[in-house]
Amino acid sequence: MAGNSFGQLFRITTFGESHGEAIGVIIDGCPAGLDVDLDYIQGELDKRKPGQSKITTQRKESDIVKILSGVFEGKTTGTPIAMIIPNEDQRSKDYGHNVDVFRPSHADYTYATKYGIRDHRGGGRSSARETAARVAAGALAKLLLKTQGIEILAHVSSVGTINAPNVFIESAEEFLEVREQNIVRCADPATAEEMIEFIDSIRKQGDTVGGKVSCYIKDCPVGLGDPVFDKLHADLGKAMLSINAVHGFEFGSGFSGSEMRGSEHNDIFIKNADGSIGTRTNFSGGIQGGISNGMPIEFKVAFKPVATIMQSQQTIDGEGNAAEISGKGRHDPCVVPRAVPIVEAMAALVLADHWLRNRNSKL
Amino acid sequence: MAGNSFGQLFRITTFGESHGEAIGVIIDGCPAGLDVDLDYIQGELDKRKPGQSKITTQRKESDIVKILSGVFEGKTTGTPIAMIIPNEDQRSKDYGHNVDVFRPSHADYTYATKYGIRDHRGGGRSSARETAARVAAGALAKLLLKTQGIEILAHVSSVGTINAPNVFIESAEEFLEVREQNIVRCADPATAEEMIEFIDSIRKQGDTVGGKVSCYIKDCPVGLGDPVFDKLHADLGKAMLSINAVHGFEFGSGFSGSEMRGSEHNDIFIKNADGSIGTRTNFSGGIQGGISNGMPIEFKVAFKPVATIMQSQQTIDGEGNAAEISGKGRHDPCVVPRAVPIVEAMAALVLADHWLRNRNSKL
Amino acid sequence: MAGNSFGQLFRITTFGESHGEAIGVIIDGCPAGLDVDLDYIQGELDKRKPGQSKITTQRKESDIVKILSGVFEGKTTGTPIAMIIPNEDQRSKDYGHNVDVFRPSHADYTYATKYGIRDHRGGGRSSARETAARVAAGALAKLLLKTQGIEILAHVSSVGTINAPNVFIESAEEFLEVREQNIVRCADPATAEEMIEFIDSIRKQGDTVGGKVSCYIKDCPVGLGDPVFDKLHADLGKAMLSINAVHGFEFGSGFSGSEMRGSEHNDIFIKNADGSIGTRTNFSGGIQGGISNGMPIEFKVAFKPVATIMQSQQTIDGEGNAAEISGKGRHDPCVVPRAVPIVEAMAALVLADHWLRNRNSKL
Amino acid sequence: MAGNSFGQLFRITTFGESHGEAIGVIIDGCPAGLDVDLDYIQGELDKRKPGQSKITTQRKESDIVKILSGVFEGKTTGTPIAMIIPNEDQRSKDYGHNVDVFRPSHADYTYATKYGIRDHRGGGRSSARETAARVAAGALAKLLLKTQGIEILAHVSSVGTINAPNVFIESAEEFLEVREQNIVRCADPATAEEMIEFIDSIRKQGDTVGGKVSCYIKDCPVGLGDPVFDKLHADLGKAMLSINAVHGFEFGSGFSGSEMRGSEHNDIFIKNADGSIGTRTNFSGGIQGGISNGMPIEFKVAFKPVATIMQSQQTIDGEGNAAEISGKGRHDPCVVPRAVPIVEAMAALVLADHWLRNRNSKL
Repeated sequence: MAGNSFGQLFRITTFGESHGEAIGVIIDGCPAGLDVDLDYIQGELDKRKPGQSKITTQRKESDIVKILSGVFEGKTTGTPIAMIIPNEDQRSKDYGHNVDVFRPSHADYTYATKYGIRDHRGGGRSSARETAARVAAGALAKLLLKTQGIEILAHVSSVGTINAPNVFIESAEEFLEVREQNIVRCADPATAEEMIEFIDSIRKQGDTVGGKVSCYIKDCPVGLGDPVFDKLHADLGKAMLSINAVHGFEFGSGFSGSEMRGSEHNDIFIKNADGSIGTRTNFSGGIQGGISNGMPIEFKVAFKPVATIMQSQQTIDGEGNAAEISGKGRHDPCVVPRAVPIVEAMAALVLADHWLRNRNSKL
Repeated sequence: MAGNSFGQLFRITTFGESHGEAIGVIIDGCPAGLDVDLDYIQGELDKRKPGQSKITTQRKESDIVKILSGVFEGKTTGTPIAMIIPNEDQRSKDYGHNVDVFRPSHADYTYATKYGIRDHRGGGRSSARETAARVAAGALAKLLLKTQGIEILAHVSSVGTINAPNVFIESAEEFLEVREQNIVRCADPATAEEMIEFIDSIRKQGDTVGGKVSCYIKDCPVGLGDPVFDKLHADLGKAMLSINAVHGFEFGSGFSGSEMRGSEHNDIFIKNADGSIGTRTNFSGGIQGGISNGMPIEFKVAFKPVATIMQSQQTIDGEGNAAEISGKGRHDPCVVPRAVPIVEAMAALVLADHWLRNRNSKL
Repeated sequence: MAGNSFGQLFRITTFGESHGEAIGVIIDGCPAGLDVDLDYIQGELDKRKPGQSKITTQRKESDIVKILSGVFEGKTTGTPIAMIIPNEDQRSKDYGHNVDVFRPSHADYTYATKYGIRDHRGGGRSSARETAARVAAGALAKLLLKTQGIEILAHVSSVGTINAPNVFIESAEEFLEVREQNIVRCADPATAEEMIEFIDSIRKQGDTVGGKVSCYIKDCPVGLGDPVFDKLHADLGKAMLSINAVHGFEFGSGFSGSEMRGSEHNDIFIKNADGSIGTRTNFSGGIQGGISNGMPIEFKVAFKPVATIMQSQQTIDGEGNAAEISGKGRHDPCVVPRAVPIVEAMAALVLADHWLRNRNSKL
Repeated sequence: MAGNSFGQLFRITTFGESHGEAIGVIIDGCPAGLDVDLDYIQGELDKRKPGQSKITTQRKESDIVKILSGVFEGKTTGTPIAMIIPNEDQRSKDYGHNVDVFRPSHADYTYATKYGIRDHRGGGRSSARETAARVAAGALAKLLLKTQGIEILAHVSSVGTINAPNVFIESAEEFLEVREQNIVRCADPATAEEMIEFIDSIRKQGDTVGGKVSCYIKDCPVGLGDPVFDKLHADLGKAMLSINAVHGFEFGSGFSGSEMRGSEHNDIFIKNADGSIGTRTNFSGGIQGGISNGMPIEFKVAFKPVATIMQSQQTIDGEGNAAEISGKGRHDPCVVPRAVPIVEAMAALVLADHWLRNRNSKL
């Protein structure tokens, strides 16, 4: 109720602050009998962890996940699965100089006002460190979805004004292999080079830049999503907008769809060679009436530039007096490369939840 | 759980099909002691109802709302408030010819597959008629918010590629007066003329067109929104994306923020003349860390073109055979003028919920 | 959240006051494809309605239920099912004399203090009239359970100090036939006579008396109930305790189990002739570790005497001044005969919910 | 949803198996600004821990709780509070001999059937070890309630057929002092002696015995509890029934109330000397219409005898073959002395939740 749980049937509850003892998550509702591949879960976390390349923060956290409950002899038992990630590199002193001032476009001011108390160390609960717990839980959701053949695939589709061309996804393996060959996680190698160079130049200026992540869900069966409020894209939208720094979400034709006519936008139904039903175009983004229609699900997420910059900025302190702030600490010049596994994790949590929910749609 | 409830503390549950007996809503959690202005609620419904102008569907429904419970001597009692809107103009025969075919970009195919049964009359539950119940409930939420001085204000900011300039809102009354002076509900009179003319031409072609609604929340106190999953903008996003035909949501800098640098995007804190704290710019859209910061909340919602067009289209039937469909019935050439009160209603439901939730943020 | 919803997957939300326009319920989460037998639902309501015999209140309400949504061509569609029961015999004037005083052991004082406002007509929302909505929803739950062979069977097992012997249930039909042959709804005809005579004498004294309802659930499969908080008996207990006038709940050995030794209380597992597994005794009441074990589920519900008596009583008024109150209106001398269908309805709602939940216990 | 969460606004989610790495709990929704007394929390756990006296299991667990998040400089911050209790004395081998057989009146058979997999070590999730997490969370709830002057007080009121007389509670301190002076936790010293002797004799026979815990809530304000389904006593009932081994719950007059007449059972309102409103008797147990009325809240909880006995018993194995089982390991001859803090913890969780909920009952 206080906002730290997500999902209805595949339900997670997360905890932890940036510089506390540990962060973690409880997953309640995962069916019994799922094989738990801990290496896979750790691998997903490794894609999110800091310090992995020259275009991410140089802060180091090994982010080793440990399962405390709910798994017995390698399988889920139907009981809650607790996962914990200890915090390591807690250089609180990097943040000591900002105790009394509100960092621009951070959550310092709103937390202090809402709660009357604020754990200022590294942003406390408002730090994006919290998303590691989502990635761990999302990895388990992915393992569940894989048993149904559903694959969640995201990549960086833009950095600043540099946009990647649309990608065509033949196989999940190939997509991931290409994407992981570059540090910006763009599935188009040529654009990736351009993006990396641009982020590096931004970093050298002590500045940051925004970007977009595109996500595709492959081989989703027809029927996932619950009208009227829990439409599949509404839950995906909430999931994405709950990620730090996200300012926009669109699916299918998205914002550009608002400029189109019905006669061009309507997706004509066709019967495929194998007897299945599809549509000629996919402006619906794989979702009609809030329910998956068997076509690829496609959506895009817009991230604002990271607020912490290595430049001096004016601000105010807790008493409302003018103050100056200069970025210290170690931060990301662009958040999207590390956001890719987070977007995938949140999408997986939504899909796993709706897959379970859909099992009760018919008698 | 099955998707027909929205909100946690100010919680609504809706019911009803397009051509059933009635639609309606139960509001649970409205505090006792709120004055219920039934004329105001009916007035909000009148803005959504069909048949109100030449650019909306010519279908006629008087949409008279009736309160069945929860109000005593003009005040809420703390018990559930049920509101019902009987269905009137149920020309099911207009839809009879489409019983066996799946209308392109409608929910026919997904409902039929998910549930194994489909109320085909006018789209059944998937019809936008369902949003009338949201508007009735949202009107009550607005009355609650007005006791706190919070105003929700939306208008049509684009139709197809016609975009209104940004509006400056001095007073809620003035904004609403200007907006209601034109049938497209755009707060910029000059652009409104252009939009109306365009929609009328689209209508004559038997086609439809998309558009965007912009929403502003005025005088929202600091502190609304619950990290980490129930960030205020995440709940607003889900609310908007749950409205029929919505394909995108952005707040503050939105998608364009993904192209900006941190040094230009950061909103510098300032102390206002009255001692309150604000920010120089508002790229954060009034929300930081998922919590309202006292600045105006600003977001934008993209609607795809209405799927029902008065042109012949190819499709398939329930057996997967090729079929042809021709639009009959009476539909909107552009949904956004009637979507304005729906966007406001959903925003009000989110704000009322988070206002109640925030009362427990501190001891 | 405000307490007017019950269940997680088979979820009901009720509304309505004793003397308002109508009472009703929305059921969300009933799977599509269930045959809806409206006569059966009405029949269940008829067992609860007032004025059915000399030992119930003489107030008359026909309690005709109407389905507004969610059912198409006789089957559920997977969308919310709204049911409404208009209020008829609203003799508010019977209650006018009690506007300003707090009736002893009623909810007048607590409602007035909690909400600051009170619909005094017939107790408003606190009236047991609200349970009609539960019976309607419970009847649908029973129809769902019948598709799985599960039968819910309750009867009056005590009135005051008159106790019926334990009944042996061979078939549901037979049990119900015997039970419905007497107006007190006791499955033991001899005890029924005694109970009826006693209630009648109590009624003539203008007094009331309490009693107990025993409930059996036949042919429940193994596996229903979710540890640790949503144990099957915990949810049954909450369901029963939420019924007006209930003061106690026990299952299996119940309170007497607290006096027993482990060596006598343990239910020894046996293999039945048909290969199924059962237990020699059933002190566990069909539930072990919060999960049904395939044995008959057995529980008992204690009802206090009705608070409205036809005798003069001292009390205080809204200003705290001494006052006197004399019962008028038409009330039940003993609530248990009409409580039988309510107990069954609430049990059915719990079982339907857990039957749906259990479908996701395994991959 | 899968049953491991409890509460709406003060909401806990627990995890952990008897012989896993650790057990723990996340509390979401505790308001910011509460002083956290870790010694108090540990002290509550110490009352529940095994090995504390000759009449409890001789198993040793130090049960040291650690707070991982949500507390900063000794105060709650409004973010989720994670508490963890590592498992120590995990003598799995004590249980190894029972891997393939279903222990009578345990949850082995139901878990194995429901989930298709079972962590047999010490009962896994079905072990009462899980309640330690409840006690830790409940201790925090008690600290919250103490800021409002509300005290939760329980004691052992019966063991087998030995019943303590009713206690009169003048002060919380005194009650607790008397209760903690004997190892059976009965507030009547004379009866305590008798109980201890009886339990000790039962233990020597390798048998177990049931008992009852009575609970009083002192100085609860008027207004807690939400009609109609979340009546205060309904939530208390569910809370108690969710505790391992509980078979019955009653409040106020309870089961004996079902034998009374309205004229004797009605609690007459009176004005106290200090101007407050009370009732002459308290058959309502401090709750009317599901809402606290300011009188002491009183309820009673019945525990069955512990299922593990040190005697040989017949049973069946996983293949349905006859088997024999003999109790090994170290178990409690009577569960009620260690159940007292669990009953108090669950009561505190319900009260804290409803105290928060009630803050929104009025505008």
